[in-house]
Amino acid sequence: MTDLQTVVREIAAEMAARHDRGAVANYIPELARVDAGSFGMVVIDAEGKVHAAGDADTPFSIQSISKVFTLTLALGMVGDRLWRRVGREPSGNPFNSIVQLERECGVPRNPFINAGAIAVTDLILSGHQPREALGEILRFLQFLARDQTIYVDRAVAESEKRTGFRNIALANYMKSFSVIDNPVDFTLGVYFHHCAIAMSCRQLATAGRYLAHAGRNPDSGLSVVSPERARRINALMLTCGHYDGSGEFAYRVGLPGKSGVGGGILAVAPGKASIAVWSPGLDANGNSHLGRVALEMLAKRMGWSIFGTDDA
Amino acid sequence: MTDLQTVVREIAAEMAARHDRGAVANYIPELARVDAGSFGMVVIDAEGKVHAAGDADTPFSIQSISKVFTLTLALGMVGDRLWRRVGREPSGNPFNSIVQLERECGVPRNPFINAGAIAVTDLILSGHQPREALGEILRFLQFLARDQTIYVDRAVAESEKRTGFRNIALANYMKSFSVIDNPVDFTLGVYFHHCAIAMSCRQLATAGRYLAHAGRNPDSGLSVVSPERARRINALMLTCGHYDGSGEFAYRVGLPGKSGVGGGILAVAPGKASIAVWSPGLDANGNSHLGRVALEMLAKRMGWSIFGTDDA
Amino acid sequence: MTDLQTVVREIAAEMAARHDRGAVANYIPELARVDAGSFGMVVIDAEGKVHAAGDADTPFSIQSISKVFTLTLALGMVGDRLWRRVGREPSGNPFNSIVQLERECGVPRNPFINAGAIAVTDLILSGHQPREALGEILRFLQFLARDQTIYVDRAVAESEKRTGFRNIALANYMKSFSVIDNPVDFTLGVYFHHCAIAMSCRQLATAGRYLAHAGRNPDSGLSVVSPERARRINALMLTCGHYDGSGEFAYRVGLPGKSGVGGGILAVAPGKASIAVWSPGLDANGNSHLGRVALEMLAKRMGWSIFGTDDA
Amino acid sequence: MTDLQTVVREIAAEMAARHDRGAVANYIPELARVDAGSFGMVVIDAEGKVHAAGDADTPFSIQSISKVFTLTLALGMVGDRLWRRVGREPSGNPFNSIVQLERECGVPRNPFINAGAIAVTDLILSGHQPREALGEILRFLQFLARDQTIYVDRAVAESEKRTGFRNIALANYMKSFSVIDNPVDFTLGVYFHHCAIAMSCRQLATAGRYLAHAGRNPDSGLSVVSPERARRINALMLTCGHYDGSGEFAYRVGLPGKSGVGGGILAVAPGKASIAVWSPGLDANGNSHLGRVALEMLAKRMGWSIFGTDDA
Repeated sequence: MTDLQTVVREIAAEMAARHDRGAVANYIPELARVDAGSFGMVVIDAEGKVHAAGDADTPFSIQSISKVFTLTLALGMVGDRLWRRVGREPSGNPFNSIVQLERECGVPRNPFINAGAIAVTDLILSGHQPREALGEILRFLQFLARDQTIYVDRAVAESEKRTGFRNIALANYMKSFSVIDNPVDFTLGVYFHHCAIAMSCRQLATAGRYLAHAGRNPDSGLSVVSPERARRINALMLTCGHYDGSGEFAYRVGLPGKSGVGGGILAVAPGKASIAVWSPGLDANGNSHLGRVALEMLAKRMGWSIFGTDDA
Repeated sequence: MTDLQTVVREIAAEMAARHDRGAVANYIPELARVDAGSFGMVVIDAEGKVHAAGDADTPFSIQSISKVFTLTLALGMVGDRLWRRVGREPSGNPFNSIVQLERECGVPRNPFINAGAIAVTDLILSGHQPREALGEILRFLQFLARDQTIYVDRAVAESEKRTGFRNIALANYMKSFSVIDNPVDFTLGVYFHHCAIAMSCRQLATAGRYLAHAGRNPDSGLSVVSPERARRINALMLTCGHYDGSGEFAYRVGLPGKSGVGGGILAVAPGKASIAVWSPGLDANGNSHLGRVALEMLAKRMGWSIFGTDDA
Repeated sequence: MTDLQTVVREIAAEMAARHDRGAVANYIPELARVDAGSFGMVVIDAEGKVHAAGDADTPFSIQSISKVFTLTLALGMVGDRLWRRVGREPSGNPFNSIVQLERECGVPRNPFINAGAIAVTDLILSGHQPREALGEILRFLQFLARDQTIYVDRAVAESEKRTGFRNIALANYMKSFSVIDNPVDFTLGVYFHHCAIAMSCRQLATAGRYLAHAGRNPDSGLSVVSPERARRINALMLTCGHYDGSGEFAYRVGLPGKSGVGGGILAVAPGKASIAVWSPGLDANGNSHLGRVALEMLAKRMGWSIFGTDDA
Repeated sequence: MTDLQTVVREIAAEMAARHDRGAVANYIPELARVDAGSFGMVVIDAEGKVHAAGDADTPFSIQSISKVFTLTLALGMVGDRLWRRVGREPSGNPFNSIVQLERECGVPRNPFINAGAIAVTDLILSGHQPREALGEILRFLQFLARDQTIYVDRAVAESEKRTGFRNIALANYMKSFSVIDNPVDFTLGVYFHHCAIAMSCRQLATAGRYLAHAGRNPDSGLSVVSPERARRINALMLTCGHYDGSGEFAYRVGLPGKSGVGGGILAVAPGKASIAVWSPGLDANGNSHLGRVALEMLAKRMGWSIFGTDDA
């Protein structure tokens, strides 16, 4: 049997040595400041054993990975009513495209492109104060990760607010179609802040365990979502989790996952493991380059692809 | 333990009773003539046991399901060079859209939209006579299904040739970008004919077994493709197999699959089963309505979703 | 010889009797409140003789007609540098489309679609306070119309500000491409206010005289723009002045013109007359229905089409 | 008063000396073979006086300029019924774009983009043999130009047929929406051949005189179209005659005109002159570069812009 800890350590060593690291996101100074040479990886297996390597405890900006958790939270609050506001299809467009919104009357294609995640955030906000909604999202992540130290990086949030003209455009565009209920500033305030949550690979892999295990945290036994909903969130991550690189990720890695421009990826091997990897350099689609490479190696060596194994 | 034969029989019975059957494709008379009340289902498990129900032995026009087999064949012939001609991303557009081709210089987004499948057919043709290329595709299917009686329905092929203006447009458009090598008439001739291959659910489920079992036919033990390639074809079916309903299929069914406008769907439960289902009525995206419903029930009752089970 | 005053009176009488009046814009309550039965028309000939009929002195919201004057003003301020920010081609899209902006990196196709006019307003603002910029625009119109009573309808401006999500989206989208220099709120504040300027047909026709007469006001002899610039603004009105109905207007009327959703149209018969017409009901493209019909009759009866006369 | 013959000669001399000549179309060898240094210009005034300079009698491939004459012919045959098949709006897209056709159900935006001209050709064909339809078009041009020597360059036509995949795509795409009645091969055969008609500037300027003079040939007095129809064709040339450079041409030149990738431009100064200019080098939009420059100089020096003169 393949030893998981050895595999994780070997992958991290190989990743540390590679020179093709992609380009660190530089659209806001706070993200650009991160060390491009960082690499962290944490795999938590079904028994709860944690296999860590590299910068496993350095917090990074989770950015779009937060969309998995806000989707989970919103589904818990409004149920399948959510799907009146957001679709479930891959977009065939970059993450911040506005073209599709015009063609489809302001309804974003899925909850993992920016427009869709903003619409989901709007549902969570739902008449409350931004501060309360953000508190709820943050507490949800602290609960999932079993770690009260998880925080919002205010400098990142402020910076996104100052420069996020594309997202402001998306939100106002949806508002013109009544897909956004709350004042645009409120919704975007919460959105920018939950994207600015900082977490380490260890915290992220812990938080993602319910997706790998039928909607329950295997340690506490507490149910986060129903098994069916966990499967469905995984399906959405598989088809839409990496923007216009989702097909490529499914093809190469074969695991549901969600990436963020901070360089993190949360991936799920159903029934087997929750995985977080972090390397700040991005590929052309805005996904962590070495993060994807590391997950491809892990899935291959462990035989974890959801699309089949090497033996019958 | 759930008894598969019982499940298959119950699903078929329930499907027979349903009134929401979608609309039979009517763009060519030959397809429109089929009985809208037909329903067939065949599941072949890992041990090779065949579980059949309904019209399991009635041949129907496999249409776009043929794209899975031409992709397999073309990958065997030209390897990953194929991906210079076709992408691997979901399209976010209807199956016969030409918009994306203009934006992306004639390179289709994936091998399962019409444009992509035409480009794949062109690679198989590769300088040979249309008759030879078609013969090769047909023999490949007869070999996979272990059944020499599989045939091309010439009436369907001729009819598509006479009315397939959209496909002629797609092929010529790609030709203008040199994505098609052979004379357009040759390539389309082969394409229209392999889409017009007629197969029963039993034949189709048999032919698809290599995708469920690491690229090998478990009966003969013969390897069709490598395990990795089988996984990758499954990944493409999951993300792109149902046109602009691919996300929905992944969300509801959770199995790699490929549909055709003849009402058939080939689905794969990796390591567990090869599945063929047929019901001629289509939904708005051009996928078999009851076929999808039946697969959703099957996956749920058997716990076959690739995105997780009901227990840990 | 055709008597202009008779023609104007007859057209107004015919328009008053017609029942096909289009639909009054209702996206803001202030515009919806106007009397759908209103019709006004003023033609000022080369000698300065004013031919008026109907509600010639009722002020209405000039809306997009203001774009002709802000373009004139901005060209005076920054010259041809303006064309780095805005194109000169018809858009082939509705007036508030955002699709084109994505394809062309935030540069609007022409100064008469909303995005283009917002970019022009941003150039006028150019570091000043919104109040000053708006004052300048208003004074420019008062000067052209020789009438100090022209005013901004604050209720209309406020209402547009509250509901103009699409325009806020357009402005932020351009800002993300650095096509907008000033704070988006400032630029839009000025934009919403200059669109809310209220003028009567008499004032509008007077203000437009420089376009009909080589850039000069024939009464005062004062030059507003060079003859070449006047021709070029006329050319832009001809090709882009009526959104996605510009071709139709050129085809039917054959005069440069600019419409607004308030139901007004300013048209120019070069060397012959400045014309303003007002009827609040709009056609499907957002242009005054009877306004266009009246201008078609006028151009035909007077032989004013720029595309040729009835005699050699 | 400005002497027209002097102006024409001076412009031709200046054009001969210029080094910025654009790039000769090379998509078919027959067009690429032409001498890039050629320049010809012919202006025929209202009195029928011919002012020629440069290569005024060298035949060149008129290409898209033929669309003006096929539109005239088709309007004569089917009247305004033509507008059910083709729109009248600028396209906002390159001449061979297929995107718009998908969005607007196969109806081309105007008769001067390729798709629109193919649809017009299909109306002329209307059940006849391609040979007859082409004969009719050729005879119409010979009649207008009063010159029986005008011919179809078969080598150019054959070459376009062999390489015109984009046009074949457009035609089949429209056929899928039933916008084309005849067999696609027939319609395209006629289209490719009328685009391959060869004419000199002298012949072209003569043929265009009816557009400048109320629909009549001033020499023969014969009416070709009604004055209103002549104006309307001029309006279409102004808004749509130069593909995605139509706005620019209107802005700079201020005359209705139609260009072809052979480097020719036919322009009309209503009531004053019919103008043909030829220089094979094209700009980025596919319009003759020096042809446009020469027309800009001519319109400016003669005060012929339809958008106004230098004096009141």
